[in-house]
Order: sequence, then C-alpha cells, then structure tokens
Amino acid sequence: MTRSHYTLATSALALALGLSATVQAEEGMWMPSQMSEIAAQMKAASAQVPPEQLADLSKAPMNAIVSLGGCSASFVSPEGLVVSNHHCVYGSIQYNSKPGQDYLTNGFLAKTKADEVPAAPGSRIFVIEDLRNVTVDMLKGVKPNMAGRARFDVLDANRKALIANCEKLANRRCDVRAYFGGERYFLQQQLEIKDVRLAYAPAGGIGNFGGETDNWQWPRHTGDFGFYRAYVAPDGSSAPYAKENVPYKPKSWLTLAKDGLKEGDFVMLAGFPGNTDRWRTVAETKTTYDQVYPLTQKMLSDYSDLVNRLTAGNQGTQIKYANSVKGADNFKKNLLGKMAGADAISLTQKKEADDAAFRTWVNADPKRAKQYGVALSDMDALIAETGKREVADIKTGQMGRVQMLSAATTLYRWAKERAKPDAKREAGFQDRDRLPVTERMKQIERRFDAGVDRKIMEWALDHYRSVATADRNEALLAKIDAIGLDKLYAETKLGDTAMRTAWMDKSAAEFEASTDPFIQLAVAAFPYAQKRLDESKDMSGKMNAAARVVMAGQLEFAKSQGKPAYPDANGSLRITYGKVAGRVQDGVAWSAFTTAEGMAAKQRGRGEFDAPAKAINLVKAKDYGRYIAPELGTLPVNYLTTVDITGGNSGSATLNAKGELVGLAFDGTLDGVISDWRFEPALIRTIHVDHRYMMWVMDKVDGAGNLLKEMGIGE
Amino acid sequence: MTRSHYTLATSALALALGLSATVQAEEGMWMPSQMSEIAAQMKAASAQVPPEQLADLSKAPMNAIVSLGGCSASFVSPEGLVVSNHHCVYGSIQYNSKPGQDYLTNGFLAKTKADEVPAAPGSRIFVIEDLRNVTVDMLKGVKPNMAGRARFDVLDANRKALIANCEKLANRRCDVRAYFGGERYFLQQQLEIKDVRLAYAPAGGIGNFGGETDNWQWPRHTGDFGFYRAYVAPDGSSAPYAKENVPYKPKSWLTLAKDGLKEGDFVMLAGFPGNTDRWRTVAETKTTYDQVYPLTQKMLSDYSDLVNRLTAGNQGTQIKYANSVKGADNFKKNLLGKMAGADAISLTQKKEADDAAFRTWVNADPKRAKQYGVALSDMDALIAETGKREVADIKTGQMGRVQMLSAATTLYRWAKERAKPDAKREAGFQDRDRLPVTERMKQIERRFDAGVDRKIMEWALDHYRSVATADRNEALLAKIDAIGLDKLYAETKLGDTAMRTAWMDKSAAEFEASTDPFIQLAVAAFPYAQKRLDESKDMSGKMNAAARVVMAGQLEFAKSQGKPAYPDANGSLRITYGKVAGRVQDGVAWSAFTTAEGMAAKQRGRGEFDAPAKAINLVKAKDYGRYIAPELGTLPVNYLTTVDITGGNSGSATLNAKGELVGLAFDGTLDGVISDWRFEPALIRTIHVDHRYMMWVMDKVDGAGNLLKEMGIGE
Repeated sequence: MTRSHYTLATSALALALGLSATVQAEEGMWMPSQMSEIAAQMKAASAQVPPEQLADLSKAPMNAIVSLGGCSASFVSPEGLVVSNHHCVYGSIQYNSKPGQDYLTNGFLAKTKADEVPAAPGSRIFVIEDLRNVTVDMLKGVKPNMAGRARFDVLDANRKALIANCEKLANRRCDVRAYFGGERYFLQQQLEIKDVRLAYAPAGGIGNFGGETDNWQWPRHTGDFGFYRAYVAPDGSSAPYAKENVPYKPKSWLTLAKDGLKEGDFVMLAGFPGNTDRWRTVAETKTTYDQVYPLTQKMLSDYSDLVNRLTAGNQGTQIKYANSVKGADNFKKNLLGKMAGADAISLTQKKEADDAAFRTWVNADPKRAKQYGVALSDMDALIAETGKREVADIKTGQMGRVQMLSAATTLYRWAKERAKPDAKREAGFQDRDRLPVTERMKQIERRFDAGVDRKIMEWALDHYRSVATADRNEALLAKIDAIGLDKLYAETKLGDTAMRTAWMDKSAAEFEASTDPFIQLAVAAFPYAQKRLDESKDMSGKMNAAARVVMAGQLEFAKSQGKPAYPDANGSLRITYGKVAGRVQDGVAWSAFTTAEGMAAKQRGRGEFDAPAKAINLVKAKDYGRYIAPELGTLPVNYLTTVDITGGNSGSATLNAKGELVGLAFDGTLDGVISDWRFEPALIRTIHVDHRYMMWVMDKVDGAGNLLKEMGIGE
Repeated sequence: MTRSHYTLATSALALALGLSATVQAEEGMWMPSQMSEIAAQMKAASAQVPPEQLADLSKAPMNAIVSLGGCSASFVSPEGLVVSNHHCVYGSIQYNSKPGQDYLTNGFLAKTKADEVPAAPGSRIFVIEDLRNVTVDMLKGVKPNMAGRARFDVLDANRKALIANCEKLANRRCDVRAYFGGERYFLQQQLEIKDVRLAYAPAGGIGNFGGETDNWQWPRHTGDFGFYRAYVAPDGSSAPYAKENVPYKPKSWLTLAKDGLKEGDFVMLAGFPGNTDRWRTVAETKTTYDQVYPLTQKMLSDYSDLVNRLTAGNQGTQIKYANSVKGADNFKKNLLGKMAGADAISLTQKKEADDAAFRTWVNADPKRAKQYGVALSDMDALIAETGKREVADIKTGQMGRVQMLSAATTLYRWAKERAKPDAKREAGFQDRDRLPVTERMKQIERRFDAGVDRKIMEWALDHYRSVATADRNEALLAKIDAIGLDKLYAETKLGDTAMRTAWMDKSAAEFEASTDPFIQLAVAAFPYAQKRLDESKDMSGKMNAAARVVMAGQLEFAKSQGKPAYPDANGSLRITYGKVAGRVQDGVAWSAFTTAEGMAAKQRGRGEFDAPAKAINLVKAKDYGRYIAPELGTLPVNYLTTVDITGGNSGSATLNAKGELVGLAFDGTLDGVISDWRFEPALIRTIHVDHRYMMWVMDKVDGAGNLLKEMGIGE
C-alpha cells in the first residue's frame, strides 16, 4: 500500500456522501471527538487507555501522532525522532543515494545526529495541534434556498477565511474538511516542520522485502520501517533546513512496549486515512463499478504500456517516467482488486438493500418523509446528472498526462488568479500555494522528456477526440490543430525549468501576448475550463445542500438502530481499534504472525527477495536475542489485525491496550481493498510490522544501538 | 487446467532432452514399464495394489484407463460408462446446447441410454492396448556418423513403418514417441472408439463453479466431472455413430471406493500427461525464460487485446473467436505463472548446479569423458544454434493466426504430399490424417470472420516485417505486397467451407494455376517453408544423435546416485503416486479438503459462483446423506494431493491404495505450474474432486440414480 494509490481522484466531484454504512464489530475510522460514543465498546474490547483520553489532542498518546502528508507517523523520543514506514521515507533514501552510496540497497544509519541527512525536498512533518468543529462558522451566510453557485461561494469564502485566520499563527498549515457530506466541518491545525532529516532506514532487502510480488499479499515478511528526525530553529520555531537547527522537542512520544503482541490482543491505531467511499449511494456505486473503474483501469493500463514502449531501451527516460508508471500500475492493481472485491462481496446488492432499508425508514414516518424526502430525490437527480459526464471526463482527463499542457494551464491560471485579492482566488492558487506550485513546476525537470510527452499527447488526443463535442474543449482542439504537434514541441520554451518558473511572475496579459505555443494553448483553453469550473461549483453547492440533509437522516437512522456512525476518511486524524487475528476460510487459514524463518525461506539473494546476508545468517543461527515471541518460539516479522485503515494510514503507530508502540501498519491485502467501499469483518485484515522485528534488525543487523537507546531500549 | 494450455508448442523443435532432473520424495510420471524400479518405494508409501500389476496394461486397473485425446478418463461400468472432468466433456455439452436447451447452465442427464446424445464431432475414446519398446526397430539403419538429415530420414521412415504396421489392425491409432530425448522409443497402440455419447454432466454452476476466478487456485470448490459412454457396432467393432450401435464392453472398469480419503492417505493416478521440460538444459532454460516466454506472453496478450477490440459489440464474431481468445488468455496466465515460479524457486540457479554436477561427474572419469564429452559439446552447440532463431520465429509465427493463410498453406502442402507414396509423405499429411485435416478445414467456418482475420493479418505482418530478412519468407512478403490485403480478402474463395474442402482433392498444378490470392500466397511461400523444414530435419537428426548419448549419461549418473529416473511427459500413459496433503507455509496453511459449506460461502447466485439453488438448499439443510467424511463431519468437495501431473492428466481417475476410484484430478495451482520444469515437493499440489461430492451431486442434486446404480452404488 503506497501513498500514491489513493491520492488520484477518480471523479472531479469527489464529494463524500451516500447511503448507509452501518457499523459492525470493530469497524470504523473514528474522529477523536467521537471517542465518547464508542468508549464502552473499546473498553469491552480491552482498551486500557481511557478512550476519552484519545479525544484530547494535547495529551499522550495522541500528541505523539504526526502526519508526513500522505503517510502517518509518530514521535518515539524526546528528541524529535519519528518512525514511519520504509516506503514513506523511500523518497528521502533515494534522494540521498548516488553511485557508490546506494542507501536504497544498503540502508542508511546516522551514528550521530550530525550524520543525519536532509530528507527529500518538500518533506514535512505535521504536528497536529487542534481539530475543532467549525460547522457554525462554515454555514454562516448559507441560506436554505440559495442557488448552488451562491452556496458554494459562501462555503468557499468561509473556508478560506477560517484557514487564513488559522494560518496567521506562524508555520501552521490548516485545512477545513467536510464530514458526512458536509453535515459537519472540522478545522485541522498543524505545526509544519520543514527541516526533516533522515536518521535511519534498513536495507531495501529488509524494508521492501518481497517488493511488488508481495505487495498487498499475505503471508508477508517486510521490515517496512524507517526513521526521520524533526529539526527546528534554535529558538524552537519551525524553520527550513539550517546547520544550526536543533532537534524538535515533542510534547510527548510513544514508548516501545516491553512485551509484544499475541493472537487475540487488543490493538489501536491513530493516523490520517486518505479517502473511503462507504457512504456513497447505490447509483454512485453502480456508475463507479460499471463504468468509472473499468475505464480508468483500461486507461492506466494503456498509459503504462505506452510509456513502457516509448522508454524501452532508454534508461534516462525510463527513470524519468518510473514513478508515473509505477503509480499507474499500482492504481490499476488497486482498481482490479476493488472490482474483484465488489463482485466477491456483492457490493451493489448490499448497497441496494441498505438503500431500501433507509428509504423505507424515511417513508415510514410522514415527518421524516417531509424532512428528508426532497433532499433524497434532489440527490438522486444530481447524482444522475453528474454521472452522465463521468465517462467523457475520464477520456478527456488523459490530457492531464501531457506535462507541457498541464504546466501551461496551471501557470496561466496562476497569473489570472494572482490578479485577484488573495481571499478571492481559487483554492490551490493562493499565496499559501506559491511554494508547492513552484515545486511542481521545478519537478517537471526530472520527470519530463519532450519526445515522450509528445507521444503521450498524441495518445491523449485520440481519447479527447473520441467524446461528444459538448464534452470537450473545442477551442483547445482548434488551437492544437492550428499549431500542430510538430510546432508545439519544436517551439515551446516551457521544457526549460528557468523559463517555466519565470512564468510564475508574469501577468495574464503577458501570457496572452506570448508566442510560446503551449502558452497559447493554455490561453485558448481557459474560457471553456472556466465554464466547467463554474458549472462544477454550482453542482457542488447543490450537492452540498441535499447531501447534508440526507446525511443527517442517515445519522438519525443509524442512531435509531443504536449504531454509532463514523464519517468517510478524508485525510484527517482518525482512530481505529481491533485485535490481532489471522483469517480462516474453507481450505485456507492465515496465521496471525509470520516469522523470521519464513522470511529466510523466501530469500533468493536477488531481486525482490534479497535480505542482507547478515540477517539471513542470524536467522540460520536463530540469534534472536530478547526479541523472541514466547508463544511462537521465534522472531515474529509481520502480523495481521482487524483494524480499519486505508491509504494514508501507512506508517501509523500500532498501539497496545496501554498505548505503547507494538509495530507499524503498512499494508492490507488485495482481497481487502474493497474495504474502501464496505468493511467486511471476516475478510479485512491490516498488515503490520512487529516492533520486535524492528528492534532485532536495528540491534542485531544494523547496529543502530544509538537509536534504540534513545528510545529507551537496551543499556 | 484446461487441455488447451499445454497443447501449444513454444518451440518448433520441441525435443525433450536436457540435464538432470533428480527424483525426490514421490515426484515422478512413471512409465508402466518402470513399475519394477519403484515398486519398493510405492509399497513403502502404502500401495496395496502390487505395483508390478500396474505394468500390465491388459489387467485391471490399467485397462480401465482411457484417453479422450487431450484429457484422461476411465471406464466405471461394464457398459462402457466413462468418467472424466466437466471441462473435458465441455465441448460436447456446448455442442448439444441451443436456445431453450441450455445444458451448459442447467446440466444434462440421460435417464436411459436411449436419451444419451452424440458427443461433439471428433470426440474419441482411446482404449490403450499396448505400449512396447521399439527402440531397436527405430534405430534400424541408423549409423553412428550419419549426417543429420540422413539420420532424421531413417528415424522418420522407421516410425512411419511401425505406425503403419500397427494400424493395419482396424480402428487402431498408434504412435511412436521418443523418451529421454530418443534414448528409447515406445509404440503406443490404442483402440479408437468413434461413437461417443454424452451421458451426464452436472450444471455449469457445479462443474465449473468458480470459473476463471478460481482457475489454478486453492481453495477450490469445483465439481469438475462428467460422463461419456463408449458405443461400438453390434459386432463389437469400432464404428461411427449409428443408432443401432451398442455400449462397448470394457475388459475392466473402476469401482467407486466405499470409504473416502483422509489426510495422509496414499493415492495414485494413471493418465496421459502432455508435456514437461524437466530434462531441458541450462541453456534452453535461459533462452526460454529470458526470451521465449516473455515474448510469447506479450504476443498472446496483444493478440487477445486486438481480437477483443475487433469483436467488441459484435456477439457473432465474439463467439467465433471466444475459444481462441480464451486459449490465448489461459496460455498467457500459465506462462506468467511459470515465469513467477521460475523466479521463486531459482530455477536457473538450480539447473546450473545440476548441470555442473553432471559435467563434473562426466569429467571425473576419462572413460566417461570420452563416452559423453563430444555429445555434450555437440548438444551445447546445437542448442546455441537453434536458440538464435527462436525470437524471430515467435514473431513470424504470429502469421499462423491468419486463418486464410494457414488454410491455404495446409491445403497446398496436402496437395504436394499427396503426390508422393503414403510412407514418404510428411507426418500429418498421410492418408491417416485426411479426416483430422478435413475436420480442421471445416471448423474454420465457426471460427472465422474475414474482417477480423484481415486485421489479424495486418497485426501479424507488422511483427513479421520486424525480423531480419534472413529470418523471414521474402517471397511470401513480396507476394503479399504485390496483391495487397484488400484484394486478398475481396477475391479469395477460401472463406467458403465447400470451396476450402474441395481443395483437399486438387493437384499441386491446380494450385499453381489458381487465381485465388491466398492460394497464390501459399504457392509463393512454399519453397522457403520447405527450405526451413529441411533445415529443421537436419537439426533434429543432429540433436537426436547427441541427445540420446547425453541422456544415456544422465541416466547412468542418476543410477550411480541410486535415483530412479523418469522421462519427460510426452502424451503417453504414465503413473504417479503420492498422498493426500495440505500445504503449510509461514503465515498460511492450506487444509487438504474443502467442504460444501465453503462452496456455499462462495455462492453469489450469478456469474462464476452460481451453484443450483437445490444444491445450496441441501447444504443449508446439511443433507449430505452417506457422503459425509467422518473426520470432517461434513461433505468434502475438493482435496489436495502430492501426485505429479500436468496438462493432459485432466480427468485422470484418482485411485486409493486398493485401486478404487476416489475422485478425479482436474487442476493444479498457479504457483505450481513451474512443476513442468521442476518438481518442488513442498510447493506442488494437485487438486481433485472428491468422489463423495460427485456421488452427492448425482444422488441428491441431479437424481442420477440410474448411473450410480450402474456403478454399483445405492440399492
């Protein structure tokens, strides 16, 4: 489970709304503020940390939980040491590797703090400080019968104002997210730590043992862990990398449990799950599985094939497009898993049953029918309306793969928005976005080849032209035809990074006067893009109005059945709990733990199964020291639990009943990715790396005694 | 595991030869004549039937074992009732289905013999009568230092003479196959029964439960069984279908065991495995896994994508090409499984170690070095020589997908060969081949669409043109260019079945005077094709000379280590034995049996998991009657064993220690298909349908009491 799988949105209007996800067993990605609702059931499940304590983000263990932006992590020492997954710090290992210094293969260990190296540019540690309900502030000025666009604009303005106010405090990143389809809103405030350094990562043969072959699979034997350290200015304030910076002192940190887990033990986990679709309606589910996913999967497959063909035999372009192809392949695998999973669990049929039950409940009472009926039919109509365009949008959306075009349109939009007051600009084009947008413009340098880009454009154009004229930007097409692809790529200067970033400071008029052919495309494309944006805002406003009423009904329905309800994942902090458990199906049984001997049995000494010889020899000698699991009589490597996670939870600290660190979540199984749509307790398992394996690797294989000591382990 | 996976040859020169496959545990596809070699180990494994008895094909149980040509089967009643896999009788179920009479979905049961229906055209039951060593006859006239072509011609003439002599007996099909790379030859004599009728097949939701999703997977819940009956003329001679024909009286038949199997029990199996490559050399292994399989897999994938695209939205052409696409997809899946498996078990490294051990042993003794050294280096050189062309041959070989071209070249070759005396004709073009060749020409009717064929030709031509001129038929290309694809398809009459079959009786001169553009292509292509054929004969002769010496060395080496050796599978009768066993790996355990409850848990009531409601209701009611497995307390469905099989073994009767029927083999697992190259005892499992499940379905679900009674079951 890598960060990238879940970050690609499949729909331009990805509003989290829908019908009926009822809670069973230990399912649920709970907001900290909901802890009181589930305190009893958590205690019944053996939690020793009072669940109510988890609602307080200023207290341990919650204030030790951090985000890496796309991954979860946690402080594990008073000196700002942070543990997450190997695949979450992978970019920083790669960034610091070069010929003759191959940290990806050999691992990296800073023996002292002075030896720690800067993480990859853009790496951040976000320390959560607050997560508060701002529903009242968000709805200020919203009137019951507002037009869609007007409603959107009020919400948008309120959101920007809340964020701007929050970010007045230096070095904060704030966001306001909708929960239950806008039934409520929370503002999340995080301290942004910009000086992030790599402290330690095991060899790739440990941290990525099993590679793509074992990805999303059980049994698993991956030591998916790595360490960052947070640094701040000597005065304690957040600052970019500087030699004189000092380790950040977190308010609290997790301690490593003395005893490891055994089957049946309680576990809980806090992190930042990215996105789930459990509250989506039947209609959305059908559109998604009948059309959106199959077509998206086909496009990803075609894109990957195309780029592989274009870069074959050319190591330079292969490296440039490796991330993009890997992302496409991973996403495709996830979608195939979801499609198979939806079929296996009869997702649509179950959604239909849930939907029928909800509508029956609504209609059973005239008051409820009046309260929710209109919103329900409004939502049905709106979903039908947006559904119509989804297939065409996926086809035309492939033009987003053309980096020159996408850079030009972003730059022109940047210029147009910059002319407005900051608060009036589109989200993503405000002053607070200058750094990430600039970074994106720079990054193209390492990910772009003009010859490949042109061929991708030819491919994307074929799809673009295949849709009805109403669904495509005719002005853009006409301009492309007028200029021609030869001239576009021969004459553009946007391939040059300095030229590209220089456009960040030019006016819209300068764009409009430019002779650069891609800039001309961006200018020609703008009016239609703006029209679509305006339409989507109107639709979003209408959806918001209907969805928050319907969701209120869903919540009332759930309450009437005595079932607590949790909102879909949206990248904000969540808590989930469960237990260590294998899985039994007719003919096959998964045990809860894998062992070091199992890892050695998979060892091939090359490719994806290439643990360091030292580790293999230690296993052969059964030199496990104090890290043995007594019940197993050997060293555990990975284990399964029933906790409820999704992409974004990678790196989450797994805590025992006392709140001590007992491992890290890092993956699920491919037959469980359907959990993004529906949680099936018998099926869904999360895969963790056992903290005893982490400690053994650090102690016996890599000699990272300095870090173990810092975490209070050893002498 | 369907018949088709293994029938496509990956190399034009598929000689079974190579280095070192040593026998461990219960591995081995043994010739009946080898039973004395392994009698002790079989007895030690609990065989109660004296292994020596299995060497006698005139006695039970071996004379109850039959071939369906591509599948294995067995007699189970004195009235010619034959049991095999559902997927082996699938074509006959399909052939008898039509709108309103959907036997594929609903199953078919003849309540009396009069209700039995003819199997699909071409269906045969082959009753083995003899399998005798003809090495001396084959080598008559072979001299030590003959040129390759001369050696080939002598072997070819001897083989044809042996077959012709054997087939003097009416209604016999005979073949002479090489074992251990030509170190020995056996003649297999079979009675060919031509009146084959379908007696019973369960519903598709039983017989193909799990479909493509579960194919090559465990856990499995497939009732993969079906019944034919063999009919002969009233005088007992083999005859084509006629109403007055009577059931064939086999010399013996298998009885169904009273008690079922339990974990650890001895099992054995006799059948007709198609092809394995365990004796291939390191060099062949490398060429295969580095080049041949990856490229073949890509071609299959591209072909399947192309045809899916060409037939999208057109049910007529989809049906015509369904078999071809399914075959390509299955073969591709098998190759991907083999490639992953080769990597997982470090195939090349193990081959290298075996090769080194053999060469060390050869060189350790001057006599052996003299005896085997020259042949070894000859073989190395010959393999290097053939390996060079393999990639180009795969690319040009795609032209074989063009049905018009392939029909025309076959027909012209038929005319050219027919001008020679029968014994001098190429194998496959003798009088004994007239019926199958004619059948093939007819079948094109149901599998051909001119528009699709043309597009396939365009695709195949791209690959054809991509190879060096020396590796392709320039005369064919020139003729294609001269005529053009438009004219080829506009003017050919070969799309018409009557026209196509009429060419079976025309002279070469008539072909050469023809204005049919595809016939003109065939005539133009002939000289180069003949040149390549002559070259391959020369190469085959040289290979034969070297390989039989090297294999004699390998056998001596194996003997020196006390290891019995068995030849690679080649479609002839083999015996294997093992035991009922699950599989345990770190983190996951397969139990040996699946159960009816597991089947019901997979049930979706649609698609691939759609067992009849009656079956599901019986499971819910736990109405299993006498078919319960006492140890499991429920009805077993499928089970795993360690027996050593490959494609062609589908339908093989699984026998208990006493030689009674306890189920049918029908599949392996995808991570086990590498067993075609190397048998890894810990990994390889064969999947069987339990005879108790068969009986339960027949008794409780389908009311096939008539057949159970015929087999001696029930009152």
